[in-house]
Amino acid sequence: MRNLIMTVSYDGTAYSGFQSQPDGNTIQDRIEAAIEHLTGEKIIITSSGRTDAGVHARAQLFNFHTASSIPLERWALALNSRLPPDIRILEARMADPDFHARRWAKRKTYRYTINCNRIPDVFQRHMQVHHPTPLDVEAMRHALRTLIGEHDFTSFCSVKSTKPSHVRTIYDAVIEIEPQRSLEGSLSTGVIHIFITGNGFLQHMVRIIVGTLLQIGEGKRSPQEMGDILAAQKRSRAGPTAMPHGLMLWDIVY
Amino acid sequence: MRNLIMTVSYDGTAYSGFQSQPDGNTIQDRIEAAIEHLTGEKIIITSSGRTDAGVHARAQLFNFHTASSIPLERWALALNSRLPPDIRILEARMADPDFHARRWAKRKTYRYTINCNRIPDVFQRHMQVHHPTPLDVEAMRHALRTLIGEHDFTSFCSVKSTKPSHVRTIYDAVIEIEPQRSLEGSLSTGVIHIFITGNGFLQHMVRIIVGTLLQIGEGKRSPQEMGDILAAQKRSRAGPTAMPHGLMLWDIVY
Repeated sequence: MRNLIMTVSYDGTAYSGFQSQPDGNTIQDRIEAAIEHLTGEKIIITSSGRTDAGVHARAQLFNFHTASSIPLERWALALNSRLPPDIRILEARMADPDFHARRWAKRKTYRYTINCNRIPDVFQRHMQVHHPTPLDVEAMRHALRTLIGEHDFTSFCSVKSTKPSHVRTIYDAVIEIEPQRSLEGSLSTGVIHIFITGNGFLQHMVRIIVGTLLQIGEGKRSPQEMGDILAAQKRSRAGPTAMPHGLMLWDIVY
Repeated sequence: MRNLIMTVSYDGTAYSGFQSQPDGNTIQDRIEAAIEHLTGEKIIITSSGRTDAGVHARAQLFNFHTASSIPLERWALALNSRLPPDIRILEARMADPDFHARRWAKRKTYRYTINCNRIPDVFQRHMQVHHPTPLDVEAMRHALRTLIGEHDFTSFCSVKSTKPSHVRTIYDAVIEIEPQRSLEGSLSTGVIHIFITGNGFLQHMVRIIVGTLLQIGEGKRSPQEMGDILAAQKRSRAGPTAMPHGLMLWDIVY
């Protein structure tokens, strides 16, 4: 049995998230069906973690053990021809026999994208949350820096979480403003990308952080409140869960 | 009656093209329905030109005469709230009473996008034609330059054309290579954009030019053949009509 690790990119718009569901409409279900179609093996893949319905991945990773002798370089094209066009395997590699895509993940980066132009970009509408009123990006940056380090992120975690600990470490958190390509010129904030890198993320964590940042960017809360919200360890203190479609699993480091 | 000119951006994936059709599934049908819903007026809009099924527009222009007194700055948002999310009015302006979006257009630019990476980009799959084998971009550039100037473009025009003259002027034609953002690194040609600017375009003209350029990029034909194909004034001498979804109406100058 070989332990294979694969990188997969997906547009999550049409799916009920990554993880297998009874309705079968998930990325994992489609990948497992493609593997079964290719090798005849009924396999359960192990991903670096789940993503919610509507959330995308530039690069998600998963591994599985297979008895198949298909050469490594043929896996991506063979699976892609059995997958819908919104899911593409980018690469397949051999992994250490003990490699486990979730347990071995050292750091993950998520990107959240907000389009602050007056009119949304039709070509990016499934990947950008439209927010046509101005945002104070400097205030958002200030608040975001408060989260860097090791903290209990209970305030930024779904109350449905069953994790024994909500302590996680954020290594880096930045906001990049995309160079203006829109026809509107420089009248608005433009498109902003929030990148957050950590050793692991709780359920809805990035989306609740973004929902809180949006309140700060709108001037409804001060950037100084971020520390109080974090310290309170109460979900009710943070802002709402931002919409899923702005979120993309960007990178995973092992 | 005011003569209004509007800029519209659309993702053409779901539509049977710009121009009104009996099935009603066109950009024009949707815009006219939104205007009627807003003003009660049954209006026929005049666009800068049609686009084929599956072809997109970053910026298409149209004009129409209206008795409505809705202030200029409210039109875009009012129509957008009555349009599907893949069609967005970007701007509304007052036009000269005689302005005619097709007749007054001085130059138009189209962009055609080809992704030459091994694996297509899931997020751009409706806007990029995937061509995973290498292309000789320098040969394509050489051939493209042959088309600049005033020529009879019969070889690059659908045989269904009913235009009395196939003489058009190409002002500029360039190929840009997008900076690599893919995870594949620099192993492939990457994503290329072909920009063609002219005083007008015949039916399928850009797509037939691209279909011919692809044969040249693949080494099936030499770049020197481009001049012979043009001079022959025969559709059968050029390459196939490239797929519609790589094409985008980019800009119009009046």
